[in-house]
Amino acid sequence: MVVVALLAGLVVTIIDKEDFPNYGVAVWWAIVTVGTVGYGDVVPHTGWGRVVGSVVIVVGVTFIAFLTAVVTSLFVEAEQDEHRALVEARQQTAHDETRRSLQELSDRHVAVEAQLRAMRSERG
Amino acid sequence: MVVVALLAGLVVTIIDKEDFPNYGVAVWWAIVTVGTVGYGDVVPHTGWGRVVGSVVIVVGVTFIAFLTAVVTSLFVEAEQDEHRALVEARQQTAHDETRRSLQELSDRHVAVEAQLRAMRSERG
Amino acid sequence: MVVVALLAGLVVTIIDKEDFPNYGVAVWWAIVTVGTVGYGDVVPHTGWGRVVGSVVIVVGVTFIAFLTAVVTSLFVEAEQDEHRALVEARQQTAHDETRRSLQELSDRHVAVEAQLRAMRSERG
Amino acid sequence: MVVVALLAGLVVTIIDKEDFPNYGVAVWWAIVTVGTVGYGDVVPHTGWGRVVGSVVIVVGVTFIAFLTAVVTSLFVEAEQDEHRALVEARQQTAHDETRRSLQELSDRHVAVEAQLRAMRSERG
Repeated sequence: MVVVALLAGLVVTIIDKEDFPNYGVAVWWAIVTVGTVGYGDVVPHTGWGRVVGSVVIVVGVTFIAFLTAVVTSLFVEAEQDEHRALVEARQQTAHDETRRSLQELSDRHVAVEAQLRAMRSERG
Repeated sequence: MVVVALLAGLVVTIIDKEDFPNYGVAVWWAIVTVGTVGYGDVVPHTGWGRVVGSVVIVVGVTFIAFLTAVVTSLFVEAEQDEHRALVEARQQTAHDETRRSLQELSDRHVAVEAQLRAMRSERG
Repeated sequence: MVVVALLAGLVVTIIDKEDFPNYGVAVWWAIVTVGTVGYGDVVPHTGWGRVVGSVVIVVGVTFIAFLTAVVTSLFVEAEQDEHRALVEARQQTAHDETRRSLQELSDRHVAVEAQLRAMRSERG
Repeated sequence: MVVVALLAGLVVTIIDKEDFPNYGVAVWWAIVTVGTVGYGDVVPHTGWGRVVGSVVIVVGVTFIAFLTAVVTSLFVEAEQDEHRALVEARQQTAHDETRRSLQELSDRHVAVEAQLRAMRSERG
């Protein structure tokens, strides 16, 4: 935001020297604009000054939208990570239980096959 | 945002010629308003001008809310896609493991049945 | 937003008659304030006028935060619903496959038990 | 937001006595700034006043981004909790069904093994 303001201030001091007599005033205007505060104490009155001003407003609004989006997605992500850990643990437990049951069935099969083999050899 | 401003500027130059003497000033006011900057250098003073201004403010705020929502949902979506790929891979692994175990049990059954068939034929 | 502005306009015309000579001006100020535009053409100068103004600003910012939150959560929800349908279908397919395999194993068991019963009756 | 405004008002009355003659005016300016309303009725004109003003603007925008993020993530979370309960119930049902089938297979195994044992003892 500060970087955008410093750059916008530079452009506007070159384009519109009337409304922005020095760089300090231009940066102050740019911060006030990018933050969508818009006091109106410093305002471009020339055509090109207003064109640059319009671009700075659009950039400012888009910047704030991105800032809000980044912060929001971090918050949403943090909350989901908590739940994800729980869901993962629950699914792991369910899967482990299924695996244990399947292993048990496999062991029982081994036993049945052994018994059958024994029966055949007994009868020899 | 620029499209809304161009349209709002057109409406306001027709409705309130006093406060908006030309289209350029009207568009400048519209951008400053839609971006919720509101310098106050150009402001409608007539009743209808303020009615149109109020509509432009409501549209501007709603537009910014939608812009922020679109950017945020893209960010949230991008982060979730990453996790979804991981969860999907983990579930696929778990399912494959279960399927392999079930296939093994099926194979053992085939063996048991073969042994039983052999026993019966041995006894004739 | 309009409802909040109409209410705020009413309160401010009662509290600060100097700065807000009529209801129309008060509602115009309230919309400009709730939308965080803040032209500065109409501004409270009395102590109580500024107290009410401060409340309207806080309400306005909170309102916009809620508006943005509602729109964003609708967008996020819409995107997740799409993915949820896909995940659900995938899990259903996996579960159906497991169920079929388990049913097959159960059928094979019935066959084995039938064979064993046959063997015992054959031997009488 | 009010806490930030009260603090910012204090700093600015100390730094820039010209533009902010008393604490009440300073707090009014701070609320108008933090809420990004920016009427422009009270504005810092000194260098340090504008530096503090710039900081207050950046803090204000960041604050609103966080406020919006908190509200949004609460909304998204509330909506996801509903779906999570449904998904959890569905997965639990699927897992219970699998467990029941596996238990049935295990019981059938016990029966097969019992029959085999009976066959061997019959032959003595």
